[in-house]
Amino acid sequence: MAMEGYRGFLALLVSALLVGFLSVIFTLIWVLHYREGLGWDGTALEFNWHPVLIVTGFVFIQGIAIIVYRLPWTWKCSKLLMKSIHAGLNTVAAILAIISLVAVFDFHNARKIPNMYSLHSWVGLAAVILYMLQLLLGFFVFLLPWAPLSLRALLMPIHVYSGLLIFGTVIATVLMGVTEKLIFALQSPAYSTLPPEGVFTNTFGLLVLVFGALIFWIVTRPQWKRPKEPNSVLLHPNRGAPEGAEGTMAVNFGNMDKSDSELNSEAAARKRNFALDEAGQRSTM
Amino acid sequence: MAMEGYRGFLALLVSALLVGFLSVIFTLIWVLHYREGLGWDGTALEFNWHPVLIVTGFVFIQGIAIIVYRLPWTWKCSKLLMKSIHAGLNTVAAILAIISLVAVFDFHNARKIPNMYSLHSWVGLAAVILYMLQLLLGFFVFLLPWAPLSLRALLMPIHVYSGLLIFGTVIATVLMGVTEKLIFALQSPAYSTLPPEGVFTNTFGLLVLVFGALIFWIVTRPQWKRPKEPNSVLLHPNRGAPEGAEGTMAVNFGNMDKSDSELNSEAAARKRNFALDEAGQRSTM
Repeated sequence: MAMEGYRGFLALLVSALLVGFLSVIFTLIWVLHYREGLGWDGTALEFNWHPVLIVTGFVFIQGIAIIVYRLPWTWKCSKLLMKSIHAGLNTVAAILAIISLVAVFDFHNARKIPNMYSLHSWVGLAAVILYMLQLLLGFFVFLLPWAPLSLRALLMPIHVYSGLLIFGTVIATVLMGVTEKLIFALQSPAYSTLPPEGVFTNTFGLLVLVFGALIFWIVTRPQWKRPKEPNSVLLHPNRGAPEGAEGTMAVNFGNMDKSDSELNSEAAARKRNFALDEAGQRSTM
Repeated sequence: MAMEGYRGFLALLVSALLVGFLSVIFTLIWVLHYREGLGWDGTALEFNWHPVLIVTGFVFIQGIAIIVYRLPWTWKCSKLLMKSIHAGLNTVAAILAIISLVAVFDFHNARKIPNMYSLHSWVGLAAVILYMLQLLLGFFVFLLPWAPLSLRALLMPIHVYSGLLIFGTVIATVLMGVTEKLIFALQSPAYSTLPPEGVFTNTFGLLVLVFGALIFWIVTRPQWKRPKEPNSVLLHPNRGAPEGAEGTMAVNFGNMDKSDSELNSEAAARKRNFALDEAGQRSTM
């Protein structure tokens, strides 16, 4: 299926994959070369799983999960398959995030370091909890077939908004985590003298930020959205008409906030049909 | 002019103003009650202007500038007036951000603390520089009347995307700054024992994050977008028709990425007209 601005999409996608992959490699180099390495023994080696698993799962895999509907090669696949891949990738990311929390709590407990005192830990735990709720909501409302279309239409804008908000919050939390770790770990030479590890890890922070920016750009281009399913035309005989507004269709940030009175008019009913269909057929970005 | 879901908008707006105002108050309480207070003498008193000015200007005022087009009471005002207010608020935010940087550099230089070593400083300076470029671009392309509509149409999606990206990055930078400052400043009792100042400042960090989330929600609801100017109907005699797609119109994240060949067709020309008009009449969110 043809995609508008395909070459631009491809360039952005390759950049995102490259920067995301580099972020994971940078984390591995950081813990293996600059820090103590990896292990599961309550020491700093166990702590080091925390950044590795967060960047791999909660940043890279979550980022890919966000844009998976936009890969034009998947547009011939069924929506159910794509939803399953979206849910599967997010589940893998959630599992890695949980293991990474276990690693850091284990390390703290073994070293008698208090848990949950820093802003990093507050925001990070909030992000993980919201992510789990989002995963459950997505599973029961959008993946399982039983939720009525009206509920999907109501929750879709919230699902999309929450997804991007959680992703952005995760990136902010990574940047806080890097800041914390460098201040604690870099003592002689201190972080303030900007030793090679400081330059390396600051660069890693920038990479994570750029990865987030690329995912955010890809997922908010209306022209790169997965096309509607063919059967949705049944509900909308006029859809094929070359209508200007079609070109500016939303990234599904939601338009479900209709008043009851408005829903009585024919025009509004048509809108609602459209919205329901959007939620049913294109229920995620 | 009637706004769809007006009560919801009002609730969100009041919440955003309240949380934003609380964030500023929290910063003031932090520096005046928990820290040394304010001054301009190269000591920590001068440093303290940094969080105060950043949260007031770069967070609160920038957040308001982002949603100013969405206030329904302003929809009867000319687009030029609203652009001037948008640009004016962003200029005030930029000036406060610059003064806040002077404060922190002054403090560092007086105390012989190195500048620009932390990830916070790297990301923060990048955000300030991008913000200045964004301000200049907005001034010359969208506020001054000389830029051709085609250029506005081309740059509008980038302007909107960059604006939200910079705003999100500023919030992430604030969270990093809080993390840094608490680790450095809280020594006895240490941050890890979570003294009252730690709880207070972590809460402040959450407030800033919630403020960002509210602004992000408000600015991405398509139904709360400033309506098109009446004269834009001249270009689009069919605009008034109750078309389903109209209801899902984008938050102007852009649809300008057309191929040249597509632009030759009549339908595409109609789309382009629409896009140009969008850029000219509704050139910002």
